[in-house]
Amino acid sequence: QVRLQSLIETRWFSQAIIALILINAVTLGLETTNWGQANIHALHIVDTLILCVFTLELLAKLLVYGRQFFRGGWNWFDLVIVSLSWLPASGPFAVMRAFRILRVMRLFSVVPQMRRVIGALGHSLPGMGSVVGVLGIIFYISAVLVTKLFGHHPDANMQEWFGSIGASAYTLFQVMTLESWSMGIVRPTMDLFPWSWLFFLPFIIITSFAVLNLFIGIIVDAMQT
Amino acid sequence: QVRLQSLIETRWFSQAIIALILINAVTLGLETTNWGQANIHALHIVDTLILCVFTLELLAKLLVYGRQFFRGGWNWFDLVIVSLSWLPASGPFAVMRAFRILRVMRLFSVVPQMRRVIGALGHSLPGMGSVVGVLGIIFYISAVLVTKLFGHHPDANMQEWFGSIGASAYTLFQVMTLESWSMGIVRPTMDLFPWSWLFFLPFIIITSFAVLNLFIGIIVDAMQT
Amino acid sequence: QVRLQSLIETRWFSQAIIALILINAVTLGLETTNWGQANIHALHIVDTLILCVFTLELLAKLLVYGRQFFRGGWNWFDLVIVSLSWLPASGPFAVMRAFRILRVMRLFSVVPQMRRVIGALGHSLPGMGSVVGVLGIIFYISAVLVTKLFGHHPDANMQEWFGSIGASAYTLFQVMTLESWSMGIVRPTMDLFPWSWLFFLPFIIITSFAVLNLFIGIIVDAMQT
Amino acid sequence: QVRLQSLIETRWFSQAIIALILINAVTLGLETTNWGQANIHALHIVDTLILCVFTLELLAKLLVYGRQFFRGGWNWFDLVIVSLSWLPASGPFAVMRAFRILRVMRLFSVVPQMRRVIGALGHSLPGMGSVVGVLGIIFYISAVLVTKLFGHHPDANMQEWFGSIGASAYTLFQVMTLESWSMGIVRPTMDLFPWSWLFFLPFIIITSFAVLNLFIGIIVDAMQT
Ligand code: NA
Ligand code: NA
Repeated sequence: QVRLQSLIETRWFSQAIIALILINAVTLGLETTNWGQANIHALHIVDTLILCVFTLELLAKLLVYGRQFFRGGWNWFDLVIVSLSWLPASGPFAVMRAFRILRVMRLFSVVPQMRRVIGALGHSLPGMGSVVGVLGIIFYISAVLVTKLFGHHPDANMQEWFGSIGASAYTLFQVMTLESWSMGIVRPTMDLFPWSWLFFLPFIIITSFAVLNLFIGIIVDAMQT
Repeated sequence: QVRLQSLIETRWFSQAIIALILINAVTLGLETTNWGQANIHALHIVDTLILCVFTLELLAKLLVYGRQFFRGGWNWFDLVIVSLSWLPASGPFAVMRAFRILRVMRLFSVVPQMRRVIGALGHSLPGMGSVVGVLGIIFYISAVLVTKLFGHHPDANMQEWFGSIGASAYTLFQVMTLESWSMGIVRPTMDLFPWSWLFFLPFIIITSFAVLNLFIGIIVDAMQT
Repeated sequence: QVRLQSLIETRWFSQAIIALILINAVTLGLETTNWGQANIHALHIVDTLILCVFTLELLAKLLVYGRQFFRGGWNWFDLVIVSLSWLPASGPFAVMRAFRILRVMRLFSVVPQMRRVIGALGHSLPGMGSVVGVLGIIFYISAVLVTKLFGHHPDANMQEWFGSIGASAYTLFQVMTLESWSMGIVRPTMDLFPWSWLFFLPFIIITSFAVLNLFIGIIVDAMQT
Repeated sequence: QVRLQSLIETRWFSQAIIALILINAVTLGLETTNWGQANIHALHIVDTLILCVFTLELLAKLLVYGRQFFRGGWNWFDLVIVSLSWLPASGPFAVMRAFRILRVMRLFSVVPQMRRVIGALGHSLPGMGSVVGVLGIIFYISAVLVTKLFGHHPDANMQEWFGSIGASAYTLFQVMTLESWSMGIVRPTMDLFPWSWLFFLPFIIITSFAVLNLFIGIIVDAMQT
């Protein structure tokens, strides 16, 4: 066990794992092109071999660290990714095959610099909680409101954009990102409801202001660290 | 009266109110879908019951705090929301029914964290006064200018975009958010008025610069707190 | 002269001027709508009367302050605006009539808070000089480059977007603001020049990065004040 | 040699070089318009003469500074630009003629203020390394994922947007810049894959958040200098 630990913790070992992840990234990328049956088969074999190595690596860590293994968030991250990769990818799960590429996210847990960047990103999340909450309530209220105001109009666009709370929330997210909000959404809506700008302009200004405050919160937080 | 106060100020009480608001948010959301006459009727009953509870809560607070009640901004906020909810929602006021969802905004006044976020947002407003004033003047001058320059052209697009001061102000707001400003508005305008870019490019640069200064003001203000 | 000075410098006087500017803003706004010949005539008379008052105010200041008048930047600002308003607005200068609304900008010089905001905006300009210079060179080089690369293709879009240095500079400004850069400009260009993304993606990244540094410069500058 | 050095290092000399670069910028700009055979010929001669002067300047510097010449990054910059200008611009290299305008970038190395700005831009690059790395991995994983999920649909749009990893990466870059992400890309994709928003909305939020952290990193870095 001690020998295994000293093996796992060498720099040589983690660099080999990084190399395997990169090779796997390439083979999974190559699978998007049609190379003929034989080559795809070869890629699948490489794929499975690498997955086996990752599984052995995880088992070794489990053996070495025991219960401590489950205390590290990144270990859970690796465990979930490798477990999901063993799910069958045929029949009703054929779409799972596409998600194999998520395995490359293991780079985030293996490369120390990336680990730090993701950690820093995660660190600024809790402070955003209440602003995200306010934004969420504004979104829910607005989605219900536009569904009730515009969603029962027989016009096909109104049905597509505001026909249900889900459709309205998607449309409002689009409006918040300012994507085609006027030429695409609000001008056609104003043809049917001339006063609808009374809702949309304040919505844009308020959500932009809330997102701005989200950003400022993160900046101020980052500077005080 | 003292007993009523001790009831109102328990944590248990405000958590019950929060629960009622959340239930109301769900029932008001469910009303957007067509569930058949009977279910809609049931939802309306729940709706009215919850509104009664909110009204009793408000009356209790009025009784307990007396004149002090009217000193709190959030009490006014609750009072306005609950009063508006009692407006008739039939005949010419049928559209008022849609605005019942605004009742969910009471979460902002009941949840202390949200109260703080909204307070902080409101706190940064006064400092923005003069920049908003400058932006407003630039908008008014620009709207009158483009209405006079482009609004009397018989082309249908010119009429829709620049036909009146209101239409021009809306179009300029769209241009300021950079939404389809070139392919949607300025290129077609340049087909009729080849020199119109001489107005629009400075307008974009100046308003972006003013909005940027608005943001910087808020950031600097936030950091000095 | 001393009596005139004490008149000019009363709070009452500058508030009267502000009121006149606001009235003028309204009358100039009303002129955008067709009210019939008689009303437009009345508006023109009010307009001319107010312009006369502004001219008298300026003459009074000239008389009171003498040479010192020309040391204040805002005095020059007022002088230019009032002088331009006296330009004839008929025959070839008919378009000048539209620019009368610029007179409302006098609010910037009369209201002290606005004066401060504009002053602060102007204060951050010199520090931006060299970044704006770098951006200008990048724009000129890019405009010449795309004109040479794409501007000689017979396709009508290529002619409109990249047919001359001016057309290219406008298109590149649009791309820099991210307005329809892909669906509107780069995808159609890639249909004719499949490798054109090799120019446009770095252009977007580099100009965004330069504009970002412009902003950061202003923020850092604002915080050290 | 000493005399040559004193010549090169005079202010007069570098100002002459700046003037030549500006003249060259104008002549290269003029070449984009069709002035008739004779004038184009004259422009080419001016062009070549200026290139000769630049080459002599570089040779002089090489002679004066010897090995030290190769220690300065800006000298390498000038060397590459001048060398590339001597490449033949006929036959298969005709497109090289368009890149002559890059010679104007020498202004960056000759004008001291620009040198400082570019230096500052370059200074903030290393700190961005790991965030750019994380963004790169997210892009590669996402590009492979959407190619596998949407790229095998026979629809022409799906083929154009997601047909290969390269096409997908370009489309995702467009989505990240928020350009027509909804009306242009995601709504049409949702017509074929109704659940595709489950990929795109998190993608937009995560990449915006990562880019925001890139910006914050640069701001914080700039303020601590
Ligand atoms: Na946009
Ligand atoms: Na757009």
